[in-house]
Amino acid sequence: MRPSQRLQTLAATFPRLRIDYLLITHLPNIRYLCGFTGSAGALLVGGAEPVFLTDGRYIEQANKEVLGARVLIEKKPPLPAAAEWLKRKQAGKLGIEGGHLTVAAEARLRALLPKPWRLQPTSGLVERQRMIKDPAEIDLVRKAVNLGSSLFGPTLKNIRPGVPEATVAAKLEYAARQAGAEGMSFETIVAASPRSALPHGRASATPIPRHGFVVLDFGVILAGYCSDMTRTVAVGRPSATERGWYDAVLEAQLAGIAAVRLGVTAGEVDESARKVLKQSKLVKYFTHSTGHGVGLEIHESPRLAAGEATVLEPGMVLTIEPGVYIPGQGGVRIEDMILVTKTGCEVLTPTTKDLITIARNA
Amino acid sequence: MRPSQRLQTLAATFPRLRIDYLLITHLPNIRYLCGFTGSAGALLVGGAEPVFLTDGRYIEQANKEVLGARVLIEKKPPLPAAAEWLKRKQAGKLGIEGGHLTVAAEARLRALLPKPWRLQPTSGLVERQRMIKDPAEIDLVRKAVNLGSSLFGPTLKNIRPGVPEATVAAKLEYAARQAGAEGMSFETIVAASPRSALPHGRASATPIPRHGFVVLDFGVILAGYCSDMTRTVAVGRPSATERGWYDAVLEAQLAGIAAVRLGVTAGEVDESARKVLKQSKLVKYFTHSTGHGVGLEIHESPRLAAGEATVLEPGMVLTIEPGVYIPGQGGVRIEDMILVTKTGCEVLTPTTKDLITIARNA
Repeated sequence: MRPSQRLQTLAATFPRLRIDYLLITHLPNIRYLCGFTGSAGALLVGGAEPVFLTDGRYIEQANKEVLGARVLIEKKPPLPAAAEWLKRKQAGKLGIEGGHLTVAAEARLRALLPKPWRLQPTSGLVERQRMIKDPAEIDLVRKAVNLGSSLFGPTLKNIRPGVPEATVAAKLEYAARQAGAEGMSFETIVAASPRSALPHGRASATPIPRHGFVVLDFGVILAGYCSDMTRTVAVGRPSATERGWYDAVLEAQLAGIAAVRLGVTAGEVDESARKVLKQSKLVKYFTHSTGHGVGLEIHESPRLAAGEATVLEPGMVLTIEPGVYIPGQGGVRIEDMILVTKTGCEVLTPTTKDLITIARNA
Repeated sequence: MRPSQRLQTLAATFPRLRIDYLLITHLPNIRYLCGFTGSAGALLVGGAEPVFLTDGRYIEQANKEVLGARVLIEKKPPLPAAAEWLKRKQAGKLGIEGGHLTVAAEARLRALLPKPWRLQPTSGLVERQRMIKDPAEIDLVRKAVNLGSSLFGPTLKNIRPGVPEATVAAKLEYAARQAGAEGMSFETIVAASPRSALPHGRASATPIPRHGFVVLDFGVILAGYCSDMTRTVAVGRPSATERGWYDAVLEAQLAGIAAVRLGVTAGEVDESARKVLKQSKLVKYFTHSTGHGVGLEIHESPRLAAGEATVLEPGMVLTIEPGVYIPGQGGVRIEDMILVTKTGCEVLTPTTKDLITIARNA
């Protein structure tokens, strides 16, 4: 079995890390490397050929999906099965995913392997590779983003005073499924008026009031890839103060996007957005980071946060999503997904960022 | 701050384990012990009073939700914040959740704590406590189960030849939201005809054929508690062979339920269901365990699987869900949620298990 390009790239890091094998247990990493989309299995890279270990429930699926690794159907769960397989090889150093394997699983694995074997925690190996999306991935991301964005217009029609936030979310999610989404990439946020001041305001039974902002933050999953977007709309005519929040957040979001280019650090993008809100004296209400990578998972590396040293490279897919949250009053967040390019970036989310106002007697 | 009964019960295990503190990082465990439903925080039990550490985004939520622990709003992430707090105490032994904390997080924590502190992995401490539901929890489970079951009748109307599985799922999920569910407790399974032979057949774009079984497995979340049920319906008149599969699975499911009583082991319940399928010569197609605990998480202890030694006790909430899956042909699974009582068990799921047949020209 010839390992795929992604598996070859990964294995090329082993000599530097002085590991002979790497045991991959984090399911999105397994999917990325060999294509398996099921929920039980382990991928063992190193030696003559990569092997993917799973159980009888996944025979059909594994044989259909897995590329670049030999499929082994085992009676035992993935960790003991991997240990059995390794026992038949010359003892060496086995890398594990330190950021995913639990303390208990590591202890179990250590007990299962003969003495000469050593375990070596590794950190974010596959995640670093996944940061840079290849053309096939970028195509899938675009499709997910476009599907997500296509739901925004129809959802606007459901945002009316008196309609519960949860109804807006339910209709959005129904439309997403009907449009072909496999699911939502995270719990849909619909947060109206004072609840818009909660950065993580899950859609509640609260009816939308006759005045205030509604923050709508949602994403879909399509062919495994996530979309993520936020728009804030006003019900009734916003006050001058509210309009000020919106304009400041939009300016910060555009400044964040403008800062994105090859060679800039993730921390510098965060700083560019934050600076605008500092000037507007709203920065104390900007209580989270500016964005994050997106791909097979909704939150991937890099984080766009103060001091983050990761240098941006073409192929990274990021969110840019500053916000302000004024306790008891309201909040605004605006979020696009962008693709880092050789010359700057491309905004993937096609939806307008002009402030949309919904009549209070709509 | 007076710790709640749940926190007191937990702390009572510390002397036996020879730990001075326990750091709880698994969010469902945090929710169970102190009520916090957000997605970032750590609970530190031991010493004079339990403390719950979170960040500025959760000020309002933590103060509103947390009971029995002092809320500390920290600038640092939960682990470093917990280490800072412990540094001011007399050094001792800190229990960690070995089944949840990653190898990398344990190493970070070890590096943050002064030398005399020692870390001690613990296993399933809170999970064991959570196995036995208290009356307030049982009430919430009942409500979730009833909401879930109420969706089955309306969903039947959507199961018709030509309708994509995903449409059945989308309408079910929309109805769940409209009925007040916070979300689904797992990815809805709608698996028709040959796809019913896949134990984990996510709803796909495949239209329901004019003949065969449709397996419908779904659950809702209400006030944090999960429901879980499966029914299998027939489109068109089932063949005698198919009818045989259904009857055998139903008999196995009833045998599983009949085996549940105080003092029996989880493994014995599995064995009782499996025995029926052995007699019907279908046991090789029963490729998973008989059931699992349900509560704040969809899969909790105990597992009802071969050899599992956990003794059943009143207050446990379990699924009983045998199934057979004949590759390329079809499958049947029937699942209820039950409550272990002093005298046997109560079936919580009120939905009929008689085979429902849908006309092929419906």
